[in-house]
Amino acid sequence: MTISMYKASVPLFVQFLTSLSAILDKAAAHAEAKKIDPAVLLNMRLYPDMFHLARQVGEANRHAVSACARLAAVEPPVFPTTEPSIPELKERIAKAIDFIKSFKPAQIDGTDDKEIVIKFPSGAERKFTGQSLLLNFSLPNFYFHVTTAFDILRHCGVEIGKRDFMGTPVNL
Amino acid sequence: MTISMYKASVPLFVQFLTSLSAILDKAAAHAEAKKIDPAVLLNMRLYPDMFHLARQVGEANRHAVSACARLAAVEPPVFPTTEPSIPELKERIAKAIDFIKSFKPAQIDGTDDKEIVIKFPSGAERKFTGQSLLLNFSLPNFYFHVTTAFDILRHCGVEIGKRDFMGTPVNL
Repeated sequence: MTISMYKASVPLFVQFLTSLSAILDKAAAHAEAKKIDPAVLLNMRLYPDMFHLARQVGEANRHAVSACARLAAVEPPVFPTTEPSIPELKERIAKAIDFIKSFKPAQIDGTDDKEIVIKFPSGAERKFTGQSLLLNFSLPNFYFHVTTAFDILRHCGVEIGKRDFMGTPVNL
Repeated sequence: MTISMYKASVPLFVQFLTSLSAILDKAAAHAEAKKIDPAVLLNMRLYPDMFHLARQVGEANRHAVSACARLAAVEPPVFPTTEPSIPELKERIAKAIDFIKSFKPAQIDGTDDKEIVIKFPSGAERKFTGQSLLLNFSLPNFYFHVTTAFDILRHCGVEIGKRDFMGTPVNL
């Protein structure tokens, strides 16, 4: 037995985007309790040349929808580029989750050997197989940004723990 | 076509542990250039009740070796519990990589449906399949700790970027 491309993508992205959305609820509650402008939290970053919290969440969203879209060869949703409030950021996550949940296993399964070329903003191109795109590129990038969003909020004193990060596996 | 359990575990753990070891070289060089005691870097954390850098690396190591050991039903290596220097921490990563590389695909493949019970230090037990252990527990935890180690060093001003995190895919 082996792992299907669908099982290694859709349910994981949904699980960790859902946990990210719940973490933002705790961030909003923390901001309210401590009388912090939520925009300040969304602009927090761990170092001046790192992305701020809102962008970390945006990148998590982007890697998740792009991975599924590229594997299935459909267009990913476009997200607004304006600075979001926490509710708007949660709406973008919800839109990403809806998009990802819309895939049927048949659209993702069998794409492990498929050639996928990514053109980066720099103009550079990189060739992947579906499997290397998912395992070596999209999932590590996705977890990187979900974790860094979590780390920024932990660093700000929001009371979240590993369980909030892990969330709950979803049956899809 | 599908993904083998081996391909979704061994080469990924090796890729990101290798990048973590190289990141520690940059941390050591940073400490030397800035005349910082490396022990100070190893003790840095993002919040008082989070693990420090050395422990984040230790947890990444532990999740990687435990995942492979549990799937293949062999004993994982035991790591010293003493506070390591940077070279000692790199030795522990090297030991983890050697252990993980020692697995043959036949030891890991076909374990996706295998029942694996983890007993946590709290005494609680959790039942997994090989696939849910790897995809929903071990890999997310592994990436969490590798990313947080990276985030701590970024927060300390060590000049590392996403490429250092991503490393280079390995052919195994």
